[in-house]
This record gives sequence, C-alpha cells and structure tokens, in this order.
Amino acid sequence: MTDLQIITSNNGKLREFKEIFGDSKYIPVQNNIDYPEIQASSLEEVVDFGLDWLQKTTKPPFVIDDSGVFIDFFNGFPGVYTRYIYDTIGLNGVLRQMEDVEDRKCTFRCVLGLLTESGEKQKFVGECSGTLIKELRGKGGFGYDPIFIPHGFEKTFAELSSDEKNSISHRGKAMRKLIDFLLK
Amino acid sequence: MTDLQIITSNNGKLREFKEIFGDSKYIPVQNNIDYPEIQASSLEEVVDFGLDWLQKTTKPPFVIDDSGVFIDFFNGFPGVYTRYIYDTIGLNGVLRQMEDVEDRKCTFRCVLGLLTESGEKQKFVGECSGTLIKELRGKGGFGYDPIFIPHGFEKTFAELSSDEKNSISHRGKAMRKLIDFLLK
Repeated sequence: MTDLQIITSNNGKLREFKEIFGDSKYIPVQNNIDYPEIQASSLEEVVDFGLDWLQKTTKPPFVIDDSGVFIDFFNGFPGVYTRYIYDTIGLNGVLRQMEDVEDRKCTFRCVLGLLTESGEKQKFVGECSGTLIKELRGKGGFGYDPIFIPHGFEKTFAELSSDEKNSISHRGKAMRKLIDFLLK
Repeated sequence: MTDLQIITSNNGKLREFKEIFGDSKYIPVQNNIDYPEIQASSLEEVVDFGLDWLQKTTKPPFVIDDSGVFIDFFNGFPGVYTRYIYDTIGLNGVLRQMEDVEDRKCTFRCVLGLLTESGEKQKFVGECSGTLIKELRGKGGFGYDPIFIPHGFEKTFAELSSDEKNSISHRGKAMRKLIDFLLK
C-alpha cells in the first residue's frame, strides 16, 4: 500500500476519495496545506496554477481537486466559483436565480491534478450532466448534490447511495482515470 | 510629468484613473499585462498576491486595482467575484437574487496596490456605501453603477456626472490617497 496525499480541506471530497480508492493499492491521506486558487474561466487553469505553485513547496506525489457546477443557461455560472456561491447565496440563492428558467441543464465537472514523484504533471477530467431541480432533496453527498439529478436517473446525488453516486459522478470518473494511470 | 503604469484591461477603470489624476503630475498609462487574481475572501489578498507576482515580471512603478460590490444581506456576495457575476448572471441576475430582499445595503470597495520604483508595496482603500435599487437607471459609469445609489444621494452612480461620481466613489477615494502618497 502506498500513501497518496490529497490536498484539500473539503471533507466531502476526501470521503469520496477514500470510498473510490477503497480497493486500489493507494491510501488517500489528507494534506490541509493552503494553496492559491486563481480566478479563471476553467477548472483546468486553476489546477495548472495550483500544481505549479505546490511543486515549489510540497513533496510529491500529491493530488489536487477542483470541481464545479456549470449551468448552461447562465453561461457556466457558478463554475470555478461553485464553492463561493454555495457559501454566500447558498443553494436557495441558486434556486432563486433559476426560478423562471426552463432550461435547467447543467454539468458537474471535476479536474484532478497529479504531480508524480518524478515531477510529471497529469490532469484527469470527469463530467456528469443532468438537471437542476426546483427544491432540495436527500441527505447524502455534499454541496449541490440535493438539487442535482444526473441524466438518466430520478434521484438527486443526495438521494443516491454513495456507491451509486461514485459510479456515475464527475469525481468518480476522474478518479478512476487517475487510478488507472497510477496502476499502469 | 511622470508616467504611472495602471495594470488593467478594464477601460472603465482606466478612464476614471485619467479623470482623477487629471491635475496631478502623474499620467496614467495602461499596461494590459495579465496577472493571476486569486480566489480569496478579500480584495486585499487579491492585491497582495498580484503585487508579489508582478514584482517578478514587471518594472515598477505600477498600480493594480481590485474592486467589488459587497452586499450585506448576502455576506458580501459578489465581493471579489463582482466582475465574474456581472459577466455571467449579469445585473438582472443580481436584481433577481435581491427580489424579495428588504435589506439592500451594500458597499463598493476599491483596493489599489502600488509597487514603487524602490520596490515598496502600498495599498490604498476606498469605500462607498449605499443602496441597491430594483431597476437599472442611467447611462454613465460601468459595471454595477446603474443599480447603485450612494448613501445621501438620489441618483445612481450611472446617473451622476463622472465628476460627481469620482468625488464620492470608492475608486475616487482610494485614488486620492494614492496621489497624496505619491506627492509626499
């Protein structure tokens, strides 16, 4: 078994890392180090900048995770500011913003950035499209999970079991790509 | 007369710099160089990081400007993401967010960061409190000006003349502190 640092202060993300890595030879270990996340139009730019910055201070291997909800009708809002919007106007604020909006399509995206022991940088992207509903449903997951129904399902991310969510979620998909890479 | 680089791609900000510097011995000159703005809870942090980054690449003296609207009811939203929110959900999105909100107090803040020729860093802060109204009024200014009435006035920033606006605005206040410092 090998430790793999996950640089995050988000316990929800860490839990999902542990669940998905469960049967691989890697053990996700939390590292709370704070690194700058830039204002940018894509998660990829945030991750690139973060990896460059952390490379100067932190011993690899480590993984960073930037994720967001991109609402079609609002040109991708809240996107890279998903967490900030959650902390300020909250899910009810997002629902208010969507009140009379018929096109409720959105995409959850997760970009994982890996710095390997040899200094190689890799990114792994996962996406999950679906619909924002009009009320909060379910107690599982975290963040925007109670208002998001993935395409092809009738339950929100917060109503699905964590195994079900991880099998289709943006983070699950990105993490399985990361694990495949690590095991190669 | 001495040139002073203003590092911004925002023409509205540049125009206000030129108006307010009008009678001083400094001439604001635009520099379009792109620098990382971090995700942070305060404009000050964004400016500190920007000055540190630019110090490695750009010859001083130069000034950077980070400004935002902080809405009391929403714990400071949109704050450091003021421009992003303007570009995505727009002023109508902000008004929708405020539809049933009675407490409409907010504060415009401007933080200027200066790197002097000798490598000294200074910050200058200006604030202007007021009220967000329920519709857009006026053609002047830029950004959130059409929905903001400064405390003690009956016109929006976009309805005031630029001289009137500059005399009370967050950016005007911060810039006069900067000019005082430069002339000392």
